[in-house]
Amino acid sequence: MPDIPSIKRPPKRLIEGILAIGAATASATLAHMGIRCAFMTGPTAWTRGRAMAGPALTLQFMPRREDLYDEGQYKDVEKQLHRHVLYQVKAGDVVVIDARGDMRSGIFGEMMMTYFKGRGGAGVVVDGCLRDFPHVGQLGVPLWIRGVTPNFHTQTDLMPFAVNVPIACGGVTVIPGDIIVADDDGSVVVPVKLAEQVIKDASVHHEWEEFSRERLEQGGELRRYYPLSDAARPEYEAWLKKKGKKA
Amino acid sequence: MPDIPSIKRPPKRLIEGILAIGAATASATLAHMGIRCAFMTGPTAWTRGRAMAGPALTLQFMPRREDLYDEGQYKDVEKQLHRHVLYQVKAGDVVVIDARGDMRSGIFGEMMMTYFKGRGGAGVVVDGCLRDFPHVGQLGVPLWIRGVTPNFHTQTDLMPFAVNVPIACGGVTVIPGDIIVADDDGSVVVPVKLAEQVIKDASVHHEWEEFSRERLEQGGELRRYYPLSDAARPEYEAWLKKKGKKA
Amino acid sequence: MPDIPSIKRPPKRLIEGILAIGAATASATLAHMGIRCAFMTGPTAWTRGRAMAGPALTLQFMPRREDLYDEGQYKDVEKQLHRHVLYQVKAGDVVVIDARGDMRSGIFGEMMMTYFKGRGGAGVVVDGCLRDFPHVGQLGVPLWIRGVTPNFHTQTDLMPFAVNVPIACGGVTVIPGDIIVADDDGSVVVPVKLAEQVIKDASVHHEWEEFSRERLEQGGELRRYYPLSDAARPEYEAWLKKKGKKA
Amino acid sequence: MPDIPSIKRPPKRLIEGILAIGAATASATLAHMGIRCAFMTGPTAWTRGRAMAGPALTLQFMPRREDLYDEGQYKDVEKQLHRHVLYQVKAGDVVVIDARGDMRSGIFGEMMMTYFKGRGGAGVVVDGCLRDFPHVGQLGVPLWIRGVTPNFHTQTDLMPFAVNVPIACGGVTVIPGDIIVADDDGSVVVPVKLAEQVIKDASVHHEWEEFSRERLEQGGELRRYYPLSDAARPEYEAWLKKKGKKA
Amino acid sequence: MPDIPSIKRPPKRLIEGILAIGAATASATLAHMGIRCAFMTGPTAWTRGRAMAGPALTLQFMPRREDLYDEGQYKDVEKQLHRHVLYQVKAGDVVVIDARGDMRSGIFGEMMMTYFKGRGGAGVVVDGCLRDFPHVGQLGVPLWIRGVTPNFHTQTDLMPFAVNVPIACGGVTVIPGDIIVADDDGSVVVPVKLAEQVIKDASVHHEWEEFSRERLEQGGELRRYYPLSDAARPEYEAWLKKKGKKA
Amino acid sequence: MPDIPSIKRPPKRLIEGILAIGAATASATLAHMGIRCAFMTGPTAWTRGRAMAGPALTLQFMPRREDLYDEGQYKDVEKQLHRHVLYQVKAGDVVVIDARGDMRSGIFGEMMMTYFKGRGGAGVVVDGCLRDFPHVGQLGVPLWIRGVTPNFHTQTDLMPFAVNVPIACGGVTVIPGDIIVADDDGSVVVPVKLAEQVIKDASVHHEWEEFSRERLEQGGELRRYYPLSDAARPEYEAWLKKKGKKA
Repeated sequence: MPDIPSIKRPPKRLIEGILAIGAATASATLAHMGIRCAFMTGPTAWTRGRAMAGPALTLQFMPRREDLYDEGQYKDVEKQLHRHVLYQVKAGDVVVIDARGDMRSGIFGEMMMTYFKGRGGAGVVVDGCLRDFPHVGQLGVPLWIRGVTPNFHTQTDLMPFAVNVPIACGGVTVIPGDIIVADDDGSVVVPVKLAEQVIKDASVHHEWEEFSRERLEQGGELRRYYPLSDAARPEYEAWLKKKGKKA
Repeated sequence: MPDIPSIKRPPKRLIEGILAIGAATASATLAHMGIRCAFMTGPTAWTRGRAMAGPALTLQFMPRREDLYDEGQYKDVEKQLHRHVLYQVKAGDVVVIDARGDMRSGIFGEMMMTYFKGRGGAGVVVDGCLRDFPHVGQLGVPLWIRGVTPNFHTQTDLMPFAVNVPIACGGVTVIPGDIIVADDDGSVVVPVKLAEQVIKDASVHHEWEEFSRERLEQGGELRRYYPLSDAARPEYEAWLKKKGKKA
Repeated sequence: MPDIPSIKRPPKRLIEGILAIGAATASATLAHMGIRCAFMTGPTAWTRGRAMAGPALTLQFMPRREDLYDEGQYKDVEKQLHRHVLYQVKAGDVVVIDARGDMRSGIFGEMMMTYFKGRGGAGVVVDGCLRDFPHVGQLGVPLWIRGVTPNFHTQTDLMPFAVNVPIACGGVTVIPGDIIVADDDGSVVVPVKLAEQVIKDASVHHEWEEFSRERLEQGGELRRYYPLSDAARPEYEAWLKKKGKKA
Repeated sequence: MPDIPSIKRPPKRLIEGILAIGAATASATLAHMGIRCAFMTGPTAWTRGRAMAGPALTLQFMPRREDLYDEGQYKDVEKQLHRHVLYQVKAGDVVVIDARGDMRSGIFGEMMMTYFKGRGGAGVVVDGCLRDFPHVGQLGVPLWIRGVTPNFHTQTDLMPFAVNVPIACGGVTVIPGDIIVADDDGSVVVPVKLAEQVIKDASVHHEWEEFSRERLEQGGELRRYYPLSDAARPEYEAWLKKKGKKA
Repeated sequence: MPDIPSIKRPPKRLIEGILAIGAATASATLAHMGIRCAFMTGPTAWTRGRAMAGPALTLQFMPRREDLYDEGQYKDVEKQLHRHVLYQVKAGDVVVIDARGDMRSGIFGEMMMTYFKGRGGAGVVVDGCLRDFPHVGQLGVPLWIRGVTPNFHTQTDLMPFAVNVPIACGGVTVIPGDIIVADDDGSVVVPVKLAEQVIKDASVHHEWEEFSRERLEQGGELRRYYPLSDAARPEYEAWLKKKGKKA
Repeated sequence: MPDIPSIKRPPKRLIEGILAIGAATASATLAHMGIRCAFMTGPTAWTRGRAMAGPALTLQFMPRREDLYDEGQYKDVEKQLHRHVLYQVKAGDVVVIDARGDMRSGIFGEMMMTYFKGRGGAGVVVDGCLRDFPHVGQLGVPLWIRGVTPNFHTQTDLMPFAVNVPIACGGVTVIPGDIIVADDDGSVVVPVKLAEQVIKDASVHHEWEEFSRERLEQGGELRRYYPLSDAARPEYEAWLKKKGKKA
């Protein structure tokens, strides 16, 4: 039986802070901190409207080599590494899979995803495909994937190779335990040691945004309202007063 | 007028058997029988939630060569090969089209697809695009396509070349009369002579799957319930009894 | 402050005429007039069911060169060219953006798109991505884009370079002021000087189409009803009479 | 044993005429005759400096389907279709192969290419790869290919499917018997029925080209010498006289 | 006749300084100055062993739109923009062409390239193809291109659109007058205003490199000789003395 | 300083046996033993005519993440992992590098490659690029690479991540210590434990090949001479006798 390293999960407070920020703000804030692209390009939101954040468990696929992996002799289910990443799942965890962008290998099907749901997993990011989507799509598990296929994961060119090791997913290096945040914009990796700072920097929001959004929607001038110009500040303050708010 | 070969349609029983199995099980079963990839990669489900199975009528496009095909002189509609594949459609048939993955050529528009619907066609698979989707999308015909375009099919680089000949669609060779099965996972080719065996092999299902799915959804252990372990068998039998079922 | 050329907007009558035709008929009619492919390949309808037409304002991105563009020094918002294309927006305008097909740069986010909506913009076509889709998607602005990303537009490889200059978008040259028409089939460029002729040519429709569609849907023969055969003409005339219509 | 259609070879005079013109002039002349692109994009000259022309024998590969093709049972060499295209080779013939752009399947190796050479074949065009290039490259047979690989042709995803049928090679439809002309610019398909006209149109060359080339190489003005301007005609005539030539 | 802006040529000293450095050092030095990627990816050295540097003249192609460009009416050669970029060529100039990576359009043929050679042009970089390579390849003009084709430049999807405007070539923005340096590594854009600094920074070379290279070639330890370790310094000084050199 | 695992080198006899076979025979023999594709697709022979075999040292690159890798702080050369793979090189070793197919990152330049040569390395395979090719190309080290670039390896999107770990290179999994064999056909991975069998299976050659090759080159019939037919056996035996050889 393979010996799988476990991950260190970040404090819930960090997870919640990052989730509240969302993928767009997380990515932009990280960029200003020097992380040029924390966005995993390729996997897209297949469960529109869902958002999630959580620590990454990782599963790595490699090009199949028949002397290293023989699906036909794959009798002992405990040898199947894609099961082992699921064994690690605790409530709130995110499974991130480097399936090498393969569009002909379906990593998990209905039973595996049902187990993931039962364990309280937060969501799944695959640089590749799931299978059995007529059933998997009904489970309500948030998914960021490249697509779906009826093929199973070792049917063509891949083999599962390692669990909870650093992987490349969608062009980003993911370290087990990194915080993943995802919504309709896609999925973003937040390094644990930067999470606190990301939350802090992102909280410096503009208190006038609600006012500006309202004015812009009414056809107000971009130059006047976004960012809030000095000329519009009295108008904003009147608006605040009317709303019974304080600047 | 072109002389189009007709196809031999498999018995309805086979079609229904394959449809009941679905694309994922068909593909996996074929893989265990030695057909490495029967899944047509590229065309995806544009009518989410629909499934179909039926014998393949085929239409082949080739790179346009103006000495062989002149759209301007294309006055005699009977010379248009894309019409001829439709002339062959009987209730339950599937039209499979090699449009060479072209994203700028729309194979059928509203009137052609309305006729297809009127003839009782089961569905359409195109390694390429349809056009007039604002109307075609309303018809309710199940579609597996790469995308849509406003262009008509001979506007850019293609010409229709042959009907009911072997084609390559989505990286799979399709022989006229093969059974196509498709759902949200995508579309799969089942060779007629293997269909009986596919149905038989796929029927060896695990009688405990319903029980295991229920337990997994409740957070049960993957090792215990999938596949069903000896340790969990008494629990399964108690569950069966309670349900008034027999193992 | 950059000096942005304005565009000449075509008469409303032309815009409405082109909108009534739709993308598929516009593209096919232009093809018959010698414009081989007016369809912008790449951006797809992300707001299914929406249609729009309007004159093009254009925004060009170029590969980022740090000596020409330094996001860190990008303090003066008036220097940001993506704002300037929005400053030009009048009711009914379409913004068309060459973002070089980049999947890691989000051109506009919520505030910019809210302003666009407030100005009465007709829609946006991007050969690339938007960001902040959890909010942008709620605005109801018609969108033809390649995808979404949490990254902002200068985070990776692009820089905004010019406004209201000729651009290439989705493989088609777009001149500022060209009429853009888009629906679920995608977006099409109609050169202003050809618009009148496109509308005229497209109006030569077949008065029997409604009849033929009805018959095809009932399973009628394609050869008989589309195009309407001489044999079916009496039947068509009877149908007309019954409907109280005149041929 | 497969029944292979033979081809009708064009008169030697046409082959020689087309060869004398070369690929660039053939392609440009065909374009002016309405054949937009007769150039096979993808295969490039691997035997730099060689040129050839000859009638096309064709070999078509299709995606491998194990129920239709089993390499393991491929004992009877007479069933191997890639042999059969070679059986057809007469002196001066060109073998054109649709290997689907596959970079992991080597169509012919040393022994097959030695036979091709022995039969006097003019050259080979493959939309894909050859194998055993350390030996094949020594044979001196003119080659237009995408690359080389150590794999044999049925090792991964392809199977030979038909000989002397119409194929698509490098984005161009090739009909058996078409004239192929190739040099360092690449390979071009000349439809037999247009060959006479191509030769005729291409012969209308500019008698002043040698003069102009000489002047341009000396730094002469493009406007003056190419095309030859009226102002430069006296100079040209003096040059002619000096050379002892006549205009 | 089009009105073509001319370029400002940098002092010869800068050109020579950059040429002496070579593409690899220029690119690395620019990277350390903040220009992340000045290397034009795509065009490769087709004239192995040649190097060049010079100011950029630019030619921009755009997707062909038949209402804006009609090759058939292209009678007046003075309207042909690809001629106009050549009219601008002075000794030592580099022509850089955005041909949109198109592999089916040959920008220049023999006569144009002969003129370029006659004018003393330093070399040509094309994000696309040349044609007539059997002759063009004989001229000895240094070339960085994606490939060759027999097609002429407006035969398929492109039209020449502007001369001496900013272009994107190989993923890099090129401003007319920028210094281009190219060798077997590829071609690099050096912004004129940074050229002086690039030359200066690159001149801080390691005086021990010749010694270290010699030792490494003899099997010396990387740790000891590159960079030169303190331990190896006496050995280096002895070597210097023996060579009659001074540190 | 990183702790780098060393590799177990196979006996020289195996290396020599595999080298004698060459890439084409190694790949084909492995295929018959069940290893579907041992060929690394992508890297091609840049030193035409060279062949090599040797045990693999591996270097893995990953997508650059600035919190994990900061080129600016990369002062301590001992931290540079691409140096460490070279520290491991013994005579006859092959360095295999997963550079993620990146065309803008040059893994090694002149000094590193000089050291590699000095250590007696057999050759280098890179799924990516080298830099400084004007010098590196002069060293005479056998190279299988995707291309060259002036950029250094961490200039754009990559960072070195691990040495002597399993990597994917050109679509094949490479385990440190695997035997790499490469020639003009490309590079192939031979698993050590299969090497003996590969050599044995490949030695079952056809003693009549030399005779057949001679006959085929003279225009002999493929059916008669390859494979050698019973009808041609007497001729072969006469040829043998004449050559003074024994069957």
